[in-house]
Amino acid sequence: MRATFMYGPGNVRVENVPDPEIIEATDAIVRITLACVCGSDLHPYRSMDKTHEGVPMGHEFLGVVEETGSQVNGFQRGDFVVSPFAYADNSCPICRDGFQTACPHGGWYGAGGVGGAQAEAVRVPQAAGTLVKVPADVDEALLPSLLALSDVYLTGHHAARMGRVEPGKTVTVIGDGAVGLSAVLSSRRMGAERIILMGRHTSRTDLGREWGATDVVAERGEEGIAEVMDLTGGEGSHVVLEAVGLMPAYEQAYGIVRPGGIISRVGVPQYEDAPVGFGSLFGKNAQLAGGPAPVRAYLEPAITDVLEGRIDPGRVFDAEVGLDQVADAYKAMDDRSRLKVVVRP
Amino acid sequence: MRATFMYGPGNVRVENVPDPEIIEATDAIVRITLACVCGSDLHPYRSMDKTHEGVPMGHEFLGVVEETGSQVNGFQRGDFVVSPFAYADNSCPICRDGFQTACPHGGWYGAGGVGGAQAEAVRVPQAAGTLVKVPADVDEALLPSLLALSDVYLTGHHAARMGRVEPGKTVTVIGDGAVGLSAVLSSRRMGAERIILMGRHTSRTDLGREWGATDVVAERGEEGIAEVMDLTGGEGSHVVLEAVGLMPAYEQAYGIVRPGGIISRVGVPQYEDAPVGFGSLFGKNAQLAGGPAPVRAYLEPAITDVLEGRIDPGRVFDAEVGLDQVADAYKAMDDRSRLKVVVRP
Repeated sequence: MRATFMYGPGNVRVENVPDPEIIEATDAIVRITLACVCGSDLHPYRSMDKTHEGVPMGHEFLGVVEETGSQVNGFQRGDFVVSPFAYADNSCPICRDGFQTACPHGGWYGAGGVGGAQAEAVRVPQAAGTLVKVPADVDEALLPSLLALSDVYLTGHHAARMGRVEPGKTVTVIGDGAVGLSAVLSSRRMGAERIILMGRHTSRTDLGREWGATDVVAERGEEGIAEVMDLTGGEGSHVVLEAVGLMPAYEQAYGIVRPGGIISRVGVPQYEDAPVGFGSLFGKNAQLAGGPAPVRAYLEPAITDVLEGRIDPGRVFDAEVGLDQVADAYKAMDDRSRLKVVVRP
Repeated sequence: MRATFMYGPGNVRVENVPDPEIIEATDAIVRITLACVCGSDLHPYRSMDKTHEGVPMGHEFLGVVEETGSQVNGFQRGDFVVSPFAYADNSCPICRDGFQTACPHGGWYGAGGVGGAQAEAVRVPQAAGTLVKVPADVDEALLPSLLALSDVYLTGHHAARMGRVEPGKTVTVIGDGAVGLSAVLSSRRMGAERIILMGRHTSRTDLGREWGATDVVAERGEEGIAEVMDLTGGEGSHVVLEAVGLMPAYEQAYGIVRPGGIISRVGVPQYEDAPVGFGSLFGKNAQLAGGPAPVRAYLEPAITDVLEGRIDPGRVFDAEVGLDQVADAYKAMDDRSRLKVVVRP
């Protein structure tokens, strides 16, 4: 089959590899219907160390079950499914807490011998815990929105949930990428009174306004902080949803969070150490939350929301490529000419 | 009057200085009945830069109002009062949120022209917002417990509150100082199912057991982490209350927190940067909370709890000195021969 690998900055290739096979009795093989490129894929696209091995890429997909291991109950060949971007057994105490991305039997696509989803097919470990069925006769027009549940929309939802967004709160979203826009939509659905979107790509912030942003701040750094402080009467934002993952976004976040407020991060941090002492978080009792979204915890009700037309998160997709053109998708997202690109194998 | 100043590591002196005077119309002058030495006073005692100016020390006290500025409504000469360790107007939006330590009109004793409380008297800015009256005829035996509300007990309470301690949760308290022990007592009152106290001074951990600790772990670092993980079936602690403020305590905290759990810090961090990325907090959706306790928000019900005998937080005091012996109190707390020392001017 054809599958996508990354070898270094800007170096994405589609290659022929053996078809995936069942290894564990809890595995399933899923043939990919739709996949896409993630904002988090752009971090290695810009800065990874060169490698001769190639890293399998892609972790968001809709697909059709092709084969199941002997312990994969409840699924059979032909089932149409959506997968969270991480696999998990969905039955251990940590999963029952609702933190499936920390499942001790879980893991990530494209790592540890598991392939990526920007491919014709993928092996899904812990398939019974990971996959969720979607009606096979779903309207084709809804597929992008179902695909968006695999990661981006529910990552935005997770940001808002861990940020404890609720009626009466002022929420600031840092980043106008697909996750940031999803965080705006989620915050509106949770009743935020005011939603300030920090971003400077008008085509994106326009969708943000449509989804609930009440204010848009194009400035960054100290100027951006000053603007948000001004908008909030000098008090700062109750909740800050950080959907970027770079240090300047983190610095903006603690600059604008209100005393006692919450910074919820879902952009994968491209740093390990960061300011948390008296001058940043501690002095004003600011809280820090967030992490990889446990999409599996949120998937069923979100599928219903899409099928019944209450949300349309697929609007973040503004282009589609075939699998052999996936490098073009990376390039277009990297240079910001596209927001998020569907990959159809 | 006599007042305490610190000039460098181990260098604490009591000196004659002019009596404090009303400067702002919102000030009061309070004659100190009881003060004490704080664990946070030991940080500069060990590591401050030498100075010729002398830093005024002490921020916990009970006292009697001696004089009030023209805008200090509700207080008069002779009122017996307890003060939070920070002053605040208690009326601005941030104070109304319950985060008085971030009040834009507030501040700290011993800084910005305000004296310390290890003294015969002190000027209290924003007195009407800061001070809380205590019945003048209160039993002398209750005074240590009222004094403990000025900082240490309600700092432990704040740790537990920001850690969202509730029935069914496992709570680990790092540090067996007066704040750590107070955090144990607070966690028990909030219904924690299990309370693991990390500390190795038996006389202290014995009080911790009396106040609700179900387990005591004397090991530190990797061994301490392994022990707590073992006690929690490999899953970690829902809540970690960090009452030390040093980096090894922070590292222990993220080592033992359960995925999706909360680290709540009230030890003043002796660091600005710390690990918060994928390998520490983000990867397991661990949350970070805490800061200087807004004691004022918790003071009235806690005074009632003390007066009605429901809590006895004054048990953390195990010695008393006169003001001129305050240097001995620092030394005894620094070498761990005393837990917390009352200063009676």
